[in-house]
Amino acid sequence: MELTLAEAKKVVEGAEVKAEQIGVPMNIAVVDVGGNLVAFERMDKAWLGSINIAINKAFTAVAFNMTTEDLGKESQPGKSLFGIHATNMGRLVIFGGGIPLRKGGELVGAIGVSGGAVPQDIEVAEAGVKAF
Amino acid sequence: MELTLAEAKKVVEGAEVKAEQIGVPMNIAVVDVGGNLVAFERMDKAWLGSINIAINKAFTAVAFNMTTEDLGKESQPGKSLFGIHATNMGRLVIFGGGIPLRKGGELVGAIGVSGGAVPQDIEVAEAGVKAF
Amino acid sequence: MELTLAEAKKVVEGAEVKAEQIGVPMNIAVVDVGGNLVAFERMDKAWLGSINIAINKAFTAVAFNMTTEDLGKESQPGKSLFGIHATNMGRLVIFGGGIPLRKGGELVGAIGVSGGAVPQDIEVAEAGVKAF
Amino acid sequence: MELTLAEAKKVVEGAEVKAEQIGVPMNIAVVDVGGNLVAFERMDKAWLGSINIAINKAFTAVAFNMTTEDLGKESQPGKSLFGIHATNMGRLVIFGGGIPLRKGGELVGAIGVSGGAVPQDIEVAEAGVKAF
Repeated sequence: MELTLAEAKKVVEGAEVKAEQIGVPMNIAVVDVGGNLVAFERMDKAWLGSINIAINKAFTAVAFNMTTEDLGKESQPGKSLFGIHATNMGRLVIFGGGIPLRKGGELVGAIGVSGGAVPQDIEVAEAGVKAF
Repeated sequence: MELTLAEAKKVVEGAEVKAEQIGVPMNIAVVDVGGNLVAFERMDKAWLGSINIAINKAFTAVAFNMTTEDLGKESQPGKSLFGIHATNMGRLVIFGGGIPLRKGGELVGAIGVSGGAVPQDIEVAEAGVKAF
Repeated sequence: MELTLAEAKKVVEGAEVKAEQIGVPMNIAVVDVGGNLVAFERMDKAWLGSINIAINKAFTAVAFNMTTEDLGKESQPGKSLFGIHATNMGRLVIFGGGIPLRKGGELVGAIGVSGGAVPQDIEVAEAGVKAF
Repeated sequence: MELTLAEAKKVVEGAEVKAEQIGVPMNIAVVDVGGNLVAFERMDKAWLGSINIAINKAFTAVAFNMTTEDLGKESQPGKSLFGIHATNMGRLVIFGGGIPLRKGGELVGAIGVSGGAVPQDIEVAEAGVKAF
């Protein structure tokens, strides 16, 4: 199963609406099951440094088929995956805001959101998933 | 002067409509005057390798305030800028498909399109500029 | 609003004067709102390894519109942004010495200073901001 | 022998004055004998893509103790050094605008200028050398 551009746009829109509601300009990215970018938006005044993070949160969520939040828990110092953030040529993000997109339980892509505090990023990403 | 997300979306849409008309799925990117990504779309079945190229065509057009086509003419073997494509850490593209976006003559960003033959990329990028 | 070279030079000069006062040779960088370098100075005998750090502290302060010191607090092990230093292709610095430059409250660029102990870097960067 | 920051600033100033005379905003970089950045200026409205090129022209001129123009002649397709621009992790520039700085015949650093047509870059770089 594939993720279409039309579907990706819906996900981005759903996230954007939520970002506007909470008043935090966000970078919003959607990648397909190959981890490759399908759609991206930087809202006005959103952080520049979060362009890369949003795209890579989405990549990370596909790459391990889990949320970046869950991956992060196991990647802290002393935990089993500590150091993983230095692999994959700097493309992994180990804090919340990246969530897999699934069709009938099957992984088809992911959304990545960055621009606010981590709980805000997660909230906006979840709104994107809900619009899917 | 700044480029807003609303403006960037119009540019992407204008390009997408043209790409559909000519039947070539494209990667379409818009960057701001700092060369940083504002909006991106990969149409269904568009080449994966062109994601990077579309984004970097837009970067290049801002970086030198000219089309990538014009930059390319002066970057051929024997020409004055030969070798420039190896600078800027691989972010320069020296064939057509990147075009500056201007407001009242002032540079505010650029569009980059990649996915077809170069003349098709240019045609689609020009449609994006026209929608601006 | 833009940051001019004349303004950037004033910022660098203000920082340099302070660095001389405290007797620590510094690398001093100023970037614009797009995160791109505007002015840079390495004082005699300043550390080579701090060239990159000064430039990237300035980039980081623009990228997240906050001081690198503040970003660093949230990026420690166990904190919400742990791992962020591995994003943005190695361009983020998460210790003090990068400070945003604002005009009328609006972000227009940043200064980054590196060459001494972190509190010294911060002191010199603040002197640069004051000269703005 | 070393290149001081005071000397580097004179070189940059000399180049800047010439750039203003010919009305082309330039990126101007000076590196020391180790190829490491000492001073940099981007004049208002100078090309973003030329930040990297100016710095690396200066690096290249030190790296081979010759002008980038001379290096370029031997680096064209079919010539003895063809392909050299892909070495040194993208830090070599093989067109004019980088010139060694010498004291009593000894290499102490280089200037790199980028922002106009190549002959303009060379003219501005030569003005910087003359101010040395």
